[in-house]
Amino acid sequence: MIELTPVQTVACCSPLMSTPLSQETAEGIAPLLKALADPVRLRLMSLVAAHENREACVCDLNDAFDLSQPTISHHLKVLHEVGLLDRSKRGTWVYYRVSPEALAAVANLFGAGIVGDAVTPSAECR
Amino acid sequence: MIELTPVQTVACCSPLMSTPLSQETAEGIAPLLKALADPVRLRLMSLVAAHENREACVCDLNDAFDLSQPTISHHLKVLHEVGLLDRSKRGTWVYYRVSPEALAAVANLFGAGIVGDAVTPSAECR
Repeated sequence: MIELTPVQTVACCSPLMSTPLSQETAEGIAPLLKALADPVRLRLMSLVAAHENREACVCDLNDAFDLSQPTISHHLKVLHEVGLLDRSKRGTWVYYRVSPEALAAVANLFGAGIVGDAVTPSAECR
Repeated sequence: MIELTPVQTVACCSPLMSTPLSQETAEGIAPLLKALADPVRLRLMSLVAAHENREACVCDLNDAFDLSQPTISHHLKVLHEVGLLDRSKRGTWVYYRVSPEALAAVANLFGAGIVGDAVTPSAECR
């Protein structure tokens, strides 16, 4: 039996709102959401995405955090391990790149089946 | 200063891929993703959504889990507290209803900015 990565599980499964999830699928998706459910990692995703070619190394990201380089590298590794960031080594540095397929899969999980329910920023928005 | 709920924070913020998230926004969003990052709660979301009017009480959901009713009620409460499920009491039971606005906000967070990057189910899909 082929083990699916969290991203493959999300990409394969039906939108959350269209069919009840099986226990197996839910257990496959949870690690990806857990990886995202952290303020530092959410910021890292958006900072990497904001870089040229949606790609950055830890050397580009240091300044945005009051954290050590090894701590930031650890968070980048967690995002890579669930498939949200691709990575490649070039010279001294490891470069991380946002996986658009992974993000699209997450959006699809929450998005489809609720067509017509547009998001209206509430009055409390600041 | 008005405190935003996690859902309001998600609905208010720009898509993850379009602008770097502030620390404050990331800290506001993380609890919502943390609530979703659990296999039981993911299944509960999809089971409630599959019910008539996207609404169910714990009495409707018991049979799908090998868990006690208080445990399931606890998970429903977690989803309610971050704004993913609305709730209302009718008679003996508390009914939970999926908030389409909350899901649309999550989809928007991951979806926009990656237009054209379609999700293609991989060959490993089962």
